Amino acid sequence: MKIICSKNNLLNGVNIVSKAVPAKTSMSILQCILIKAEKGKITLTANDGELGIETVVEGTIEREGNVALDAKFLSDIVRKLPENTVTLDVEENFVTHITCENSFINLIGKDGDDFTALPKISKTDSILISEFSLRDVIRQTIFCLSENNSNHMMNSELFEISNDTLKVVALDGYRIAYRKVALKNTYPDNKVIIPGKTLNEISRILTGDVNKDVVIYFEKNLVLFELENTTIVSRLVEGQYFNYEQMLNNDYETKIKVRNKDLYEGIDRGTLMLREGENKPIVFDVSDEKIDLSIKTIVGEMKENISCEKSGKDIAIAFRPKFFLDVLKVLEEEEINMYMINAKSPCIIRNDEDTYVYFILPVNFIKE
Amino acid sequence: MKIICSKNNLLNGVNIVSKAVPAKTSMSILQCILIKAEKGKITLTANDGELGIETVVEGTIEREGNVALDAKFLSDIVRKLPENTVTLDVEENFVTHITCENSFINLIGKDGDDFTALPKISKTDSILISEFSLRDVIRQTIFCLSENNSNHMMNSELFEISNDTLKVVALDGYRIAYRKVALKNTYPDNKVIIPGKTLNEISRILTGDVNKDVVIYFEKNLVLFELENTTIVSRLVEGQYFNYEQMLNNDYETKIKVRNKDLYEGIDRGTLMLREGENKPIVFDVSDEKIDLSIKTIVGEMKENISCEKSGKDIAIAFRPKFFLDVLKVLEEEEINMYMINAKSPCIIRNDEDTYVYFILPVNFIKE
Repeated sequence: MKIICSKNNLLNGVNIVSKAVPAKTSMSILQCILIKAEKGKITLTANDGELGIETVVEGTIEREGNVALDAKFLSDIVRKLPENTVTLDVEENFVTHITCENSFINLIGKDGDDFTALPKISKTDSILISEFSLRDVIRQTIFCLSENNSNHMMNSELFEISNDTLKVVALDGYRIAYRKVALKNTYPDNKVIIPGKTLNEISRILTGDVNKDVVIYFEKNLVLFELENTTIVSRLVEGQYFNYEQMLNNDYETKIKVRNKDLYEGIDRGTLMLREGENKPIVFDVSDEKIDLSIKTIVGEMKENISCEKSGKDIAIAFRPKFFLDVLKVLEEEEINMYMINAKSPCIIRNDEDTYVYFILPVNFIKE
Repeated sequence: MKIICSKNNLLNGVNIVSKAVPAKTSMSILQCILIKAEKGKITLTANDGELGIETVVEGTIEREGNVALDAKFLSDIVRKLPENTVTLDVEENFVTHITCENSFINLIGKDGDDFTALPKISKTDSILISEFSLRDVIRQTIFCLSENNSNHMMNSELFEISNDTLKVVALDGYRIAYRKVALKNTYPDNKVIIPGKTLNEISRILTGDVNKDVVIYFEKNLVLFELENTTIVSRLVEGQYFNYEQMLNNDYETKIKVRNKDLYEGIDRGTLMLREGENKPIVFDVSDEKIDLSIKTIVGEMKENISCEKSGKDIAIAFRPKFFLDVLKVLEEEEINMYMINAKSPCIIRNDEDTYVYFILPVNFIKE
């Protein structure tokens, strides 16, 4: 194989597919990026078995062929090459000569035929969504997943399609994120469960451009995201998702309208009282026109009062500060509405259009 | 004690003195910042025994006194306060009430009288240098110190004053950095050895302003740096410094003039062939008009040729890439001069004015 392309095109491609290279394995074929020059197209591929990414790189093919190169070295080398055209010339024994201006680098490669190709997908069932909407909805829900949980449902998000709506749900047993996105077309009902890791990597590849579309294809155990030059394939999680809808009910005894920024900054300052790993709750003491926030730890205590509009009963309720901050951070509204029943029942944050619902369980606290 | 000052003044002061708070000790008085309001002046002090920093914070004193507060908590709290005036009100039991807008924080403090004061210095012997020159000369030499070395001389820099010149030397057994700085006045000869840690922290406090001066006072075992609002006291290292001058001799067989940027980028790309912790040398093969750089590791090999002007003998010599990069990084000249004798003798990089000399020992290599 011999190809010529610009340093920046190559680097961009390497950066994209590197997201499917596993962080830890001994130097095996899994840690490589497959470079393939075939039928006039240069493609880079990485595949860790769960997640596979393929991207097309613009360039000239002088001799077709393939090679698998260690992802980390390739990425480091390409990043530091001069900003100019790069030639990759692969010998029969897969030693790869990388040339750029006065730099000559030989890298020991592997046979690209040993690389596991991405699974084929029939491309029958699909939806269309903008890069912007997809990236946004992932960002606004993914923080509710549990990072270390043996229950795969709590590491994964539900994508539920009905008519022209995509509902995305993430939950970890303490909180639920629910978002509704309008789709441009109408589709048959479908429900898939996508691993959080896949969504996380995809959201880092998406440009967030409103005018660029992503086609998402579904198959029995697989999902494929087709971007402009990049294809991402991931396994789906099998099984039945939680019956989340019954948890997001609309009853409440107290409704509070508050400025997001005020509440965020108040809680954020409260977290200063916590030492690393410490798990003290922040208490919301809500009376007619204000929320008295307070937190007390071994270090000291913090009090802060925030003005709000309240209807219904007074309430004193406590939360893990991080759970509340995570939600407030992704809400763009200046003012938000919180709905509560009592100190043992979840707090629901939602807008009137019901395009989002967040559910946060309170924690016990001792009232002074 | 009760004081009022702006959040930004307080934060700035806390950041400055925090550099003398040790990273690891259990929550003792050493991990605290002393806040003192006395004789119309608010001062913050931190002191780890080796290094002590005191800085003056602008503000209003409503009641004199002192308190010692945990540095990490204080710094985190002040950073997150609203941008407004902050009141610190200390009770008799040293519980400190921090108030800013609607935030009320109580922090458990300690008696400031338990805090070890900075050592007194007689302020007889001193030199004057600009913040800019001091910061620069530290940056340009400190990388030659060895981080983990039981020989304190290799963790510390020599400051040698003679007439109107300050010479600064750092060495670690493999390389030497030597810099000469012109002083504004003439001073009696003096030699002190200052711990690298002290210089490192000072360089992070110095603003780099050409128009601001630092007074450096010397006493038997101590050095004191007096900045605009900040005083830094450090212990000196006792003993005899190395006889470095005989190592920096002017003999050479080969003189090479090369563009700094070309050489830097070439060596930098060579380091890509190294796996973490790997210790392969980069070979300089110098013939009439070019340096052929090459490095060969388990991953592959890199060659790069760099044009240069050479006088004297051809030479092949090898170095640890990092040692060379460290030096090239701090040289501002577009073109630099390297002087070599043979593959076993040090390479000397210096300018014609002799304001700097860098010495780098070569390493063994097998010529192919």
